Amino acid sequence: MTNFASRHIGPSPDDQSRMLKTVGYDSVEALMTAAIPGSIRWHQPLALPLAASEAEVLGELRALASANRTLVSMIGLGYYGTHTPPVILRNVLEDPSWYTAYTPYQPEISQGRLEALLNFQTVIADLTGLPVAGASLLDEATAAAEAMTLARRSSKVKADVYVVDADVLPQTLAVIRTRAEPLGITVTVADLDAGELPEAYFGLHVQYPGASGAVRDLEALTARAHEQGAIVTFAADLLALCLLREPGAFGADVAVGSAQRFGVPMGFGGPHAGYMSVRKGLERTLPGRLVGVSKDADGAPAYRLALQTREQHIRREKATSNICTAQVLLAVTASMYAVYHGPDGLRGIASRTHDMAVRLAAGLRAGGVATQHEAFFDTVTAVVPGGAAAVVAAAAERGINLRQVDADRVGIACDETTTFGHLRDVLAAFGLSHVDVTELDTADVVPAQLRRTSDFLTHPVFGTHRSETAMLRYLKRLSDMDYALDRGMIPLGSCTMKLNATVEMEPITWPEFADVHPFAPAAQTQGYRRLIGDLERWLAEVTGYDAVSLQPNAGSQGELAGLLAIRAYHHSRGDTGRDMCLIPSSAHGTNAASAVMAGMRVAVVACDELGNVDLGDLEAKIEQHRDRLAAIMVTYPSTHGVYETGIAELCAKVHEAGGQVYVDGANLNALLGFAKPGKFGADVSHLNLHKTFCIPHGGGGPGVGPVAVRAHLAAFLPSHPVFEGGAAAPVGPVSAAPWGSAGILPIPWAYLRLMGPDGLAKATATAVLAANYVAARLREHYPVLYSGSEGLVAHECILDLRTITKATGVSVADVAKRLIDYGFHAPTMSFPVSGTLMVEPTESEDLAELDRFCDAMIAIREEIDRVAAGEWPAGDNPLGNAPHTAAVVTADEWEHAYPRSLAAYPAGVSAAKYWPPVRRIDDSFGDRNLVCSCPPASAYEE
Amino acid sequence: MTNFASRHIGPSPDDQSRMLKTVGYDSVEALMTAAIPGSIRWHQPLALPLAASEAEVLGELRALASANRTLVSMIGLGYYGTHTPPVILRNVLEDPSWYTAYTPYQPEISQGRLEALLNFQTVIADLTGLPVAGASLLDEATAAAEAMTLARRSSKVKADVYVVDADVLPQTLAVIRTRAEPLGITVTVADLDAGELPEAYFGLHVQYPGASGAVRDLEALTARAHEQGAIVTFAADLLALCLLREPGAFGADVAVGSAQRFGVPMGFGGPHAGYMSVRKGLERTLPGRLVGVSKDADGAPAYRLALQTREQHIRREKATSNICTAQVLLAVTASMYAVYHGPDGLRGIASRTHDMAVRLAAGLRAGGVATQHEAFFDTVTAVVPGGAAAVVAAAAERGINLRQVDADRVGIACDETTTFGHLRDVLAAFGLSHVDVTELDTADVVPAQLRRTSDFLTHPVFGTHRSETAMLRYLKRLSDMDYALDRGMIPLGSCTMKLNATVEMEPITWPEFADVHPFAPAAQTQGYRRLIGDLERWLAEVTGYDAVSLQPNAGSQGELAGLLAIRAYHHSRGDTGRDMCLIPSSAHGTNAASAVMAGMRVAVVACDELGNVDLGDLEAKIEQHRDRLAAIMVTYPSTHGVYETGIAELCAKVHEAGGQVYVDGANLNALLGFAKPGKFGADVSHLNLHKTFCIPHGGGGPGVGPVAVRAHLAAFLPSHPVFEGGAAAPVGPVSAAPWGSAGILPIPWAYLRLMGPDGLAKATATAVLAANYVAARLREHYPVLYSGSEGLVAHECILDLRTITKATGVSVADVAKRLIDYGFHAPTMSFPVSGTLMVEPTESEDLAELDRFCDAMIAIREEIDRVAAGEWPAGDNPLGNAPHTAAVVTADEWEHAYPRSLAAYPAGVSAAKYWPPVRRIDDSFGDRNLVCSCPPASAYEE
Repeated sequence: MTNFASRHIGPSPDDQSRMLKTVGYDSVEALMTAAIPGSIRWHQPLALPLAASEAEVLGELRALASANRTLVSMIGLGYYGTHTPPVILRNVLEDPSWYTAYTPYQPEISQGRLEALLNFQTVIADLTGLPVAGASLLDEATAAAEAMTLARRSSKVKADVYVVDADVLPQTLAVIRTRAEPLGITVTVADLDAGELPEAYFGLHVQYPGASGAVRDLEALTARAHEQGAIVTFAADLLALCLLREPGAFGADVAVGSAQRFGVPMGFGGPHAGYMSVRKGLERTLPGRLVGVSKDADGAPAYRLALQTREQHIRREKATSNICTAQVLLAVTASMYAVYHGPDGLRGIASRTHDMAVRLAAGLRAGGVATQHEAFFDTVTAVVPGGAAAVVAAAAERGINLRQVDADRVGIACDETTTFGHLRDVLAAFGLSHVDVTELDTADVVPAQLRRTSDFLTHPVFGTHRSETAMLRYLKRLSDMDYALDRGMIPLGSCTMKLNATVEMEPITWPEFADVHPFAPAAQTQGYRRLIGDLERWLAEVTGYDAVSLQPNAGSQGELAGLLAIRAYHHSRGDTGRDMCLIPSSAHGTNAASAVMAGMRVAVVACDELGNVDLGDLEAKIEQHRDRLAAIMVTYPSTHGVYETGIAELCAKVHEAGGQVYVDGANLNALLGFAKPGKFGADVSHLNLHKTFCIPHGGGGPGVGPVAVRAHLAAFLPSHPVFEGGAAAPVGPVSAAPWGSAGILPIPWAYLRLMGPDGLAKATATAVLAANYVAARLREHYPVLYSGSEGLVAHECILDLRTITKATGVSVADVAKRLIDYGFHAPTMSFPVSGTLMVEPTESEDLAELDRFCDAMIAIREEIDRVAAGEWPAGDNPLGNAPHTAAVVTADEWEHAYPRSLAAYPAGVSAAKYWPPVRRIDDSFGDRNLVCSCPPASAYEE
Repeated sequence: MTNFASRHIGPSPDDQSRMLKTVGYDSVEALMTAAIPGSIRWHQPLALPLAASEAEVLGELRALASANRTLVSMIGLGYYGTHTPPVILRNVLEDPSWYTAYTPYQPEISQGRLEALLNFQTVIADLTGLPVAGASLLDEATAAAEAMTLARRSSKVKADVYVVDADVLPQTLAVIRTRAEPLGITVTVADLDAGELPEAYFGLHVQYPGASGAVRDLEALTARAHEQGAIVTFAADLLALCLLREPGAFGADVAVGSAQRFGVPMGFGGPHAGYMSVRKGLERTLPGRLVGVSKDADGAPAYRLALQTREQHIRREKATSNICTAQVLLAVTASMYAVYHGPDGLRGIASRTHDMAVRLAAGLRAGGVATQHEAFFDTVTAVVPGGAAAVVAAAAERGINLRQVDADRVGIACDETTTFGHLRDVLAAFGLSHVDVTELDTADVVPAQLRRTSDFLTHPVFGTHRSETAMLRYLKRLSDMDYALDRGMIPLGSCTMKLNATVEMEPITWPEFADVHPFAPAAQTQGYRRLIGDLERWLAEVTGYDAVSLQPNAGSQGELAGLLAIRAYHHSRGDTGRDMCLIPSSAHGTNAASAVMAGMRVAVVACDELGNVDLGDLEAKIEQHRDRLAAIMVTYPSTHGVYETGIAELCAKVHEAGGQVYVDGANLNALLGFAKPGKFGADVSHLNLHKTFCIPHGGGGPGVGPVAVRAHLAAFLPSHPVFEGGAAAPVGPVSAAPWGSAGILPIPWAYLRLMGPDGLAKATATAVLAANYVAARLREHYPVLYSGSEGLVAHECILDLRTITKATGVSVADVAKRLIDYGFHAPTMSFPVSGTLMVEPTESEDLAELDRFCDAMIAIREEIDRVAAGEWPAGDNPLGNAPHTAAVVTADEWEHAYPRSLAAYPAGVSAAKYWPPVRRIDDSFGDRNLVCSCPPASAYEE
């Protein structure tokens, strides 16, 4: 059998020998001994199962899958059965050209997924009736929590009271509560039908339709809340909005929700695209990412991420949210579902779903079972005094899961997949086998004033891809515009763009993993629970911690969960004054934002000229804040890509002062198998499974951000209402679903199982070797900014262009865009240091690709030298004009100072070249002229 | 639920109304009434199940799949367990850019799959040690039969005797016998160990290793056969050849076999790539397709199909084979398996497989069970007097299928997937649970003189794609070079390039369909048997026949099976003199080739100036051959794309003279739901499931060519040794596996189930409407060559360029290549009439794409007019220089008479343009300088 590690790791043993020679070491072991401080080196092998072959792992996963029972879900509560159109399943969710793409920070080579995201924004904006929608959030519950803080910022009301509809989804309420507490917000649950509103409150959250299924007229309520100065958020169901009056028409300020039922499998809770849209005037307060239309160097329309300066790595502790990813792959899927069905198709699906619910209610009533509401969309609450448990059990015996609301009530949610057969089985569970579902009344039960009268999805994109052939070609055309890992290296520092192996990806679309509701009974989800248990244990083992929670569905949520655990720990000891979080100046901006969200204040610790934390300043800051010291957050290896030797000492100093140590796990790819944060002094870390553990970036999400803690913090990990004792736990949930993005956990499970302890350590060493190889080859062409005591970098290296830029005017952006002409995705630009490029080759790139990259960088340096020598003017050279599109280079006129052939085919570029679809994009134009939904076709006219 | 037909059919109802207006009809029904002769019109709805939704069909297929039991197969006999590397499974077999591609007749836009096929040829040539290999054949048994006729053509021996090894695979022997009989060849089975060779024979077939597993030294035997003037064919196992001395080293003239175990699932018998390679001197006798290296207009190396003039549509009754397809998709898969594993990996897999067999034999002997042979590769024959059935049953209980050779012997074949656990279970089935498989002797049992000493796969392509990342990018880079249905229309007349829907494709890689041995017990294959039963019934219903055989694994085999049925029918009535087959001059060349293979002679019937069969000449020919008249073969609608009105009369005349009517089903896409060949006078048809029934073309195979017959011919359908009474049947098998390419039969099953009777008829009508729409739009720019009595074409139309070419020098090839610049695959060139283009738009192209094509053709006509007007010289215009690569159009020098922009972006071409990787390819250079395996890298130097 082939060893999977030899497939995952790019350089062969021979290649590695050559690379070691360049770096100047005899063996990988010698390199790692020199690179990693002895004080933190972990010498025992990881206690993990030995590596298994791809076939064995597929076999084990099939066994786990078949230990799940996939009953028909009619539980509802925000998760619904849906048909993913096969053409979208195969050509998006199962297609590496979509799932191995990175976040579209280089918009010129991301036009395909940016168009798909603009479609998503248009779907959300149209359906909610609010003009500006973001490119997706993590889930409905976290979107609702973000809406709460948005409301607090935007409302003039001073009272720290947030009112939540009593008919809210329970997981949404729980997440809102978790997020409100550290911010000092009081959450008041109100029976809106009874008009119970407090005197003063800054915001109101309503569920539309309600969790019970009820569809209510919220116009008067919204008006009253506005009179009171509150911001009103509708948590709205997208399918219902195809038939129901849209939030914007009620006067809502904000809408949030989930796009799951637009073709994204339930996946035991996620990942799905949450959404948020806002009324005019609030667009610059939107959390997360926003795609906008700008123009390129020719003035042609081009897509890009808008308002990026709002992002957290810039705003740090002034950030209003710590969200720094989206659910792009799922947003793309949902948007394509809308593109494929179009407005008529969506209305048809919504009508059919409503028809099923109406029939069901009629059937229940015909059989003498009362239902709670007159007006509903898809969910019927049946009243069976004392009989709810028996009905739910009887339905389960027939293969259907219902929701037991309480002892007397049963919730039944219909969806796109509901059939007459399902209705018959449900009625039978109520003892009503004799009712004929085909003979029942199907009159629409939505009151006239709550029916939708406005059009939606009128843009041509929602009407032109209706045959499967047309849809396939649209997906292909978009993915052809983009550069993903299937084309070449994406050497993004701090992002770890390594192999997403097919064998890891295959299971996630198997029905046994995909079609499971997150609140399905434990007895039906044994496969998932075993897989999750394994993964928690394995992640604890590799990090040296004692407990792991897989709930956070992004690194940002993991950070928050880790800090909430620290906060709750201090509070549990009566240490309520500890609210100061130390953060080195080199830290990722998200750290500070998360600290603020966890109710902490931030003090910055200086770095020395080598980029390391200044231990002297650290001591000073500790002294200054000793009594209030809650925690320090450090990244290890540092964001400068260096193994700092003082890490153990740093941990000791903070502990001595009563603080906790938070090690950001972003760079775990440089530690695995060689050092364990939980053993060298840290108390808590979050991990990014989309970095080290092979969850694909998906064009900008999904992410999974588990939090790992030492034993004393274990009791303070996120809880969930569905966990035993969840309601009374010290820390509530940070994500809607109990295990967050459970549906993609087979990926890291498979990776760990395939690599085994030896493979994981080899991967780490190869990643470090690759970074040092690139540094060694490029050092004489570009200064390498930081390195450790042995002159070595860790798993990434920073190329310093500042003096070059000063001397020649050629910027990091010019180099990044010129790399596109050479067939590469740029390294990370200007992070963590402005004017630099950070290169992380990862272990998955083979020597040929590493050399191709180094050769391109060296050739670009030669081009820079020609600019410096005055051979090409500063205003007209191949760097400044990059990237070059085919249209530019084939134009009849060519009046540049350099030849076409150099523009199109610089050294090393073959006939099978990737051509960017647009020229360099004007960022500031797009921000000044914000367009965030599909523009009319006339916008594309020259 | 969405109606699948509305996804399969491109034009919406609104679009169809517009198209009807252009064509001049009020309704689709009116159009069809006018187009199809009333005499053949079938007015009842098809008796098929009503259309089901995609979700329902997937559910039904999952139920069928789970009715198969996938035991571990150790049956052997040419079908083995194998691990398809997941990266290849997902990015070839499950990737529309590979499976929707057409045969590479337009080599400039097929360089990716041509490179993959050249890799395949290199694998076969290297492993067999014979220098020239073809681009795949249908399966091992038909390849062996082709080798027999090749031997007959190439040997100087006059005796019509062919000697076959007694240790041959039983299905190979059966197919050889089927093919030998009509050709007057006597097949003699010889015990080669006993040296039993006749006096005179033209060829010898040896199995290496034997079906029993035996590995024999065949050097002396080969030398003796050569001395006797015979051609020697080795049927050799590719994996064994990684360890065993290669056929070329024994002096073999020909090698045949299957590439199945190189990563292609068993699929209950197929499809797999059969192979053939030959010694120097025989390359121009190879049947099937051969890829060669030529050069493009810049002199750069470029791939193409070599020696195409050998093909059947040219050679007709002088053809030496009727093979006109390959198994490209499977050959690509197998070649990529070799690319990914490389020579060391393959040797490792072969060694491990051998080791398992050696352990097994040692275990059996240790337990007192005798084994038949000392030297073997992967298969052990155990001798258990009287106990074979019990052992096989005991193994099946443990989840393993073995082969019961006879009452006393059990065959056990190891493969890549065999584990120690399997060996333990097998030993337990022999009652040897106590034997410890880990403790057994594993010394190689292959005698020294039979071990391989030569290198193989030394070309760099087999050493540079060893990481999954590198492999993924190689597959992407190749598919990016190619134009398939995922980019745009492929309007190939007579080829029906319509949608291959994802939902149809999904099941074929499910393990329950993929991992089944064709000879697995019936009780384990109930799902397949139900699916096959349904499909046979449904195909009989839609064609109006009484019985269907799904065995023929290509249209060519279906033709042969149909003609063999006619032959056997006449013989069964004592009518042995009937051997004359009438074929209209417009027929596809394969028809005549098949007739010759079925032992018939061919007489050509003339066509009139309208392209119809000349009924007067038909009558004359009938009279001339009345007593010898076996059959007439006609295509309906004709190969001219016209519904001939005389078809019913034609059938009656032939019947009256005692002949049978064979209707070639190539154009069934124009009949389904409107006329049934079995009802309008035909006795037999073969169908092309890759045309009308949505099996993807796969870049040139797989095909499935079932044969359908009226009741009187049912007894003469192909049989198979594994069928009850198979050995005594009047007609033997035409393919190796009982149901041919069973593994892809879920595709047509799903198509029929999804479309239902109404959907199928709508598809037919839309295909006819689309062809007439194209004809109507283009008629004033290009003459439409043939049409029926109402001025209508059927499902395709022929554009006549002969006068244009005469006047301007612009050829059909120029137009075809210029279409590439416009983003299209060319229509069929010069078939059935030289100097014309035949356009078949199919029902799956929407109006926007049809119009884009018509607009491009009109723009090209305007370009031709500019050549005619002398604006551009005949030697330098955008047509003659097409296709234009990006390299040409971005070159620093441009000295053409037309601008770059017109070359690169003619009217209607967008920024998301497809660029061909090479310029126009020189066909004759390649044929004069035949290079059919990977050339050294130096060949690519300028």
